[in-house]
Amino acid sequence: MALRNSINDSARKNKLSFAIFGLGRAGAIHFGNLVRNPRATIRYVVEESRDRADQVMSRWLFDHVEEGCQVLTAAEAKKVYEDHSLDAVIVCTFTHTHEEIVKKALAAGKAVFCEKPITTQLSATKSCYDLAEKQRKMLYCAFNRRYDPSIRHLQERVRNGAVGQVQSIKTCSRDSPFPPLAYFKISGGMFHDCAVHDIDVICWILGQFPDVVYAQGHCFHQELSGMDDVDQVAITMKFPSGTIASIDLNRESSYGYDQRIEVFGSGGMLETRNYSHQVNVVGHLGNQGASAEPLPHSFPQRYAEAYANELDYFIDYQLGLDPHIEVSRKDTVMATIIAEACEQSYRRGTPINIKDMME
Amino acid sequence: MALRNSINDSARKNKLSFAIFGLGRAGAIHFGNLVRNPRATIRYVVEESRDRADQVMSRWLFDHVEEGCQVLTAAEAKKVYEDHSLDAVIVCTFTHTHEEIVKKALAAGKAVFCEKPITTQLSATKSCYDLAEKQRKMLYCAFNRRYDPSIRHLQERVRNGAVGQVQSIKTCSRDSPFPPLAYFKISGGMFHDCAVHDIDVICWILGQFPDVVYAQGHCFHQELSGMDDVDQVAITMKFPSGTIASIDLNRESSYGYDQRIEVFGSGGMLETRNYSHQVNVVGHLGNQGASAEPLPHSFPQRYAEAYANELDYFIDYQLGLDPHIEVSRKDTVMATIIAEACEQSYRRGTPINIKDMME
Amino acid sequence: MALRNSINDSARKNKLSFAIFGLGRAGAIHFGNLVRNPRATIRYVVEESRDRADQVMSRWLFDHVEEGCQVLTAAEAKKVYEDHSLDAVIVCTFTHTHEEIVKKALAAGKAVFCEKPITTQLSATKSCYDLAEKQRKMLYCAFNRRYDPSIRHLQERVRNGAVGQVQSIKTCSRDSPFPPLAYFKISGGMFHDCAVHDIDVICWILGQFPDVVYAQGHCFHQELSGMDDVDQVAITMKFPSGTIASIDLNRESSYGYDQRIEVFGSGGMLETRNYSHQVNVVGHLGNQGASAEPLPHSFPQRYAEAYANELDYFIDYQLGLDPHIEVSRKDTVMATIIAEACEQSYRRGTPINIKDMME
Amino acid sequence: MALRNSINDSARKNKLSFAIFGLGRAGAIHFGNLVRNPRATIRYVVEESRDRADQVMSRWLFDHVEEGCQVLTAAEAKKVYEDHSLDAVIVCTFTHTHEEIVKKALAAGKAVFCEKPITTQLSATKSCYDLAEKQRKMLYCAFNRRYDPSIRHLQERVRNGAVGQVQSIKTCSRDSPFPPLAYFKISGGMFHDCAVHDIDVICWILGQFPDVVYAQGHCFHQELSGMDDVDQVAITMKFPSGTIASIDLNRESSYGYDQRIEVFGSGGMLETRNYSHQVNVVGHLGNQGASAEPLPHSFPQRYAEAYANELDYFIDYQLGLDPHIEVSRKDTVMATIIAEACEQSYRRGTPINIKDMME
Repeated sequence: MALRNSINDSARKNKLSFAIFGLGRAGAIHFGNLVRNPRATIRYVVEESRDRADQVMSRWLFDHVEEGCQVLTAAEAKKVYEDHSLDAVIVCTFTHTHEEIVKKALAAGKAVFCEKPITTQLSATKSCYDLAEKQRKMLYCAFNRRYDPSIRHLQERVRNGAVGQVQSIKTCSRDSPFPPLAYFKISGGMFHDCAVHDIDVICWILGQFPDVVYAQGHCFHQELSGMDDVDQVAITMKFPSGTIASIDLNRESSYGYDQRIEVFGSGGMLETRNYSHQVNVVGHLGNQGASAEPLPHSFPQRYAEAYANELDYFIDYQLGLDPHIEVSRKDTVMATIIAEACEQSYRRGTPINIKDMME
Repeated sequence: MALRNSINDSARKNKLSFAIFGLGRAGAIHFGNLVRNPRATIRYVVEESRDRADQVMSRWLFDHVEEGCQVLTAAEAKKVYEDHSLDAVIVCTFTHTHEEIVKKALAAGKAVFCEKPITTQLSATKSCYDLAEKQRKMLYCAFNRRYDPSIRHLQERVRNGAVGQVQSIKTCSRDSPFPPLAYFKISGGMFHDCAVHDIDVICWILGQFPDVVYAQGHCFHQELSGMDDVDQVAITMKFPSGTIASIDLNRESSYGYDQRIEVFGSGGMLETRNYSHQVNVVGHLGNQGASAEPLPHSFPQRYAEAYANELDYFIDYQLGLDPHIEVSRKDTVMATIIAEACEQSYRRGTPINIKDMME
Repeated sequence: MALRNSINDSARKNKLSFAIFGLGRAGAIHFGNLVRNPRATIRYVVEESRDRADQVMSRWLFDHVEEGCQVLTAAEAKKVYEDHSLDAVIVCTFTHTHEEIVKKALAAGKAVFCEKPITTQLSATKSCYDLAEKQRKMLYCAFNRRYDPSIRHLQERVRNGAVGQVQSIKTCSRDSPFPPLAYFKISGGMFHDCAVHDIDVICWILGQFPDVVYAQGHCFHQELSGMDDVDQVAITMKFPSGTIASIDLNRESSYGYDQRIEVFGSGGMLETRNYSHQVNVVGHLGNQGASAEPLPHSFPQRYAEAYANELDYFIDYQLGLDPHIEVSRKDTVMATIIAEACEQSYRRGTPINIKDMME
Repeated sequence: MALRNSINDSARKNKLSFAIFGLGRAGAIHFGNLVRNPRATIRYVVEESRDRADQVMSRWLFDHVEEGCQVLTAAEAKKVYEDHSLDAVIVCTFTHTHEEIVKKALAAGKAVFCEKPITTQLSATKSCYDLAEKQRKMLYCAFNRRYDPSIRHLQERVRNGAVGQVQSIKTCSRDSPFPPLAYFKISGGMFHDCAVHDIDVICWILGQFPDVVYAQGHCFHQELSGMDDVDQVAITMKFPSGTIASIDLNRESSYGYDQRIEVFGSGGMLETRNYSHQVNVVGHLGNQGASAEPLPHSFPQRYAEAYANELDYFIDYQLGLDPHIEVSRKDTVMATIIAEACEQSYRRGTPINIKDMME
């Protein structure tokens, strides 16, 4: 919304009321987008640390009393579920708390926007979706990259045949900065934390899921020794159409947050190369050659528009303005299964057939 | 503000209350930025067309009653000036109405943010500034390009010596789309409407004003015949430092809004080339060669951040958070004088000394 | 040589006399470089088709009588081996004839410049090198990419630490145009014909050979059905240093000959992206967006400098001006073994340990 | 020729014999191209310094005795003119000697390839062309940029309507490295030495000559004080079609030899930006941002192909294979007149009408 310059007026009949759980890194981003979105009102902030809540709210000059918003602890969350007038819940808490919040919110008839992963257990994720279906409420898994304008434009052009039959698709996603060690302990590992994004984007662009995957990995950071995690990963996926996908991931890019996609087919090639998303683009030529500005530092900068756009999609869907279900139950479940297959491939040193993961 | 991701909390002590005069093209942009800026409250909208006002407000889901904002006609503007609690006025009406609004607002003790030009008469502009000085209120002339992140970054790097002694500076500004014919009648002509922006940016980057200017022009659009205007202009300016500036302007770029600056000096070259500001950046390689997306369509897209940033600067200044006067009285007056010198040079076919324009 | 603008005079003491076997596609390129290289004299052309020989020679206005060059058929090749004054032999015939020519030339004391592969059998290749070592003559396997200025510059910068510890290295090599079907029958298959180049370049840049490889492939061209070949390949290689390499190959790029390398490490990223090698570089901006010229059509254009440079290296080595052995016996043998391991991996659907290929 | 990969065989009926006068910087470039061009034979080298001649010849391993080439001093040049079998003369000596060599060569029935300027006096230049016309021999003025592949491609696309009606055309030419002071004394000044190239290219692209020109200049290098020369120049030219041309020249670019052209019209924009002509193109991303290799150091690198191509054109014309006169008498004369008009404009501080220069 922040970057939309024209908005269809007839589409703006209603507003949606939100409760947001968790004001950590992702939560703070979503909170800022809620504040700036004229179709959203924030009715509840559920955050254990009142200091954190005050910090985020004051950053946006959000006077919760004046705005009619209650700030609660998890113990007080019952108020959220009991408020019949509340429309939707955004879940940005630690992953292990997702299942309870998602289920209580759905049970109370709220639409749910949940940071990925829905839960760490496939069976739990499935039961969340079962409940959503029963309640006829959306359970939206926030794969933010689908709403990046460049990536969405790429996907649309591929689907419209801009490169003909897709033969090779490659993503390169390099994190910046290196996350704190504490994060690695709760991240779920590189395959479930990082690769799952690339897997989802590739399957979304192709409109297929792979038959077989193979993964290599290595841990270059000595700080991670003992954590049984990796910081460099390469994944190969073979699709029913014959298309071969390659994913190249790294946890620490010294030159900023690097996110690229390349799609090659019988009719040509499309690629996104980070070029938009740089604010201070000034080229320099000197006696050392040509130079340009660094890439965006990290995901809040790189995917600022994506975060704002996915919130707008969620609101559009709730208001009946967009009937399309963007990240379906199947998409979420398959991304998790494929990420797990990649991790198993890396650990066993052998390709994994996806159907063997799906009993 | 819309694109700032972190804001210094201590800076957020206060809000500023605004009246906005005129919800035309520029006014709609400023209104949107006011809505999204948590430090701004909109207390008055002054717009002759209630339909236009409703259209712009509804675009942002702005419920003026709920927000405590009055919607007035020009005839009711007195309410604005009489409201002692109001902090600032934004002036985006037709140019011929600027002088009256600016002076009444200043007289009433309001800070004034005014679209360029302040007035069409140098003497009137000067008397506006005289009043602003007497009232000790800011009269801000909105040269938006100074707040474009790329251009500002370029200016800072030039001032910090990134290219050594500046020897050549060039701007290229090509409009898109071709304005409606009605606009040409009130535009003030290409020198005062367009060139004045390039002149201001060049003088701001160099920190100097030119000694002598020369302009060539031509009118390629037959629709403009009889209007005594041009659609292609080339300007040369010589500065006291020896630096030579070249400006290349055109009214209609078929490939979108093209805004570039190049600064060359003893130590190298810096340039901005439109690359940021493109949302859907996807490269394509096919049997016709390489291709990329078109440039932004027009100024609202290209300078979206600049408009938001200049509003933030204005608020910062009013709140005492930024003591720097960005566009000074001298800057505004000199840009007008130099633009007029360029127009005279074009009409007379001879270089013009700026000091001959200043008695 | 063709593109060298300054040549060290002291280095130019001598010339080298050549016989060239085969004036097909590669032979014609090497012949042209011999003609233009002032340090080379062509004493024998061995080519079955006199028409082909005349065509190539006339293209370069090469009057073989005036130049003291004999044009022979294979049956007359004995004259080459018996000419004690002849220095070197260039072998560009069909692969199955390489072994005989290489061995006879080495036995006769000639240095040998041989198009890859030396032979199709590892044991035969090894026996050729055995003979070269015994005769103390160079047997040079022409991996042309090592002499491409961009790729060489990349290799040097990587070795000098420009990206720190290498964690990921990727090549993308897409052929253009699609080769004639007849070629596929003698090509040796995509792994030995194409992948071997990428494998050699990666090992050369890293200074290591991989421990384990995995390959995926697919055949999109129905014309190839029944040939047991593929046209799209993805290879993953894991190196002792932990570095993971990814190779992406395709037989038909609609947008020209695409050859890129990316090296990522703890200190940054280096990449070559085809940008040099385009002669008519003119950018266009129109209402369809930005566009640029297509890539070079095929390898003779893309690697023109590489072919000229590798000939110069070969002459430098023979004249004692460059003691470095650029493509060693081990390099050649390992590239063949690794290419074979990749093919086996693709056929068996499992990773292959290189050491299992080496008994 | 050096970079041509296919040559029409039927075009190769003959060779052309050359004498070359002067083996300075330009002469050495032309000598190398003659050596590598199979259609050229070098029969005379006329050079005062035998050391210089030996140095250049040995650089190309050119054994003049073996090749049947005589090395002469200027005093012995008579032999050249008296050799009835000689076809053509290349003149690369100091400018003040051009007239005598050109006229003697034309009088002797030789075609003449002459470095620009033909002479320093317009009347002398005209009398050289008079003689050429009388003798029906080509007098070719070597404006090398016309044969740069990028620039030629740009010209062809402009002429074919790729940008519609041309409204603005700009060149930027920055020299590298700064020439030795001795050179400035004989250079003829920046307008005749440098600007004349840009003037010729612009008129060639447009197919017109300007009506009026205006020039600004400045001297930043203190070493040049007292030489009455400048090192930064900006020129504006207005053409009969309404097109406005801008030229930006500098004598010392710290980042290498910078040569760009931009043509804007009703249908879009074309530009050349130095990108071809860089041999070692490797991009780097590190924590300082993106960087790429420096531009080519100077004209021998940047215009290597242009020099080779213009020699091929000259031979084609002599052999009757290309009937087109590329740089006509009028082109040469007008470029000189316009350069002089620019210099006069700079000195007088006023625009100059070209027709006032032509009586």
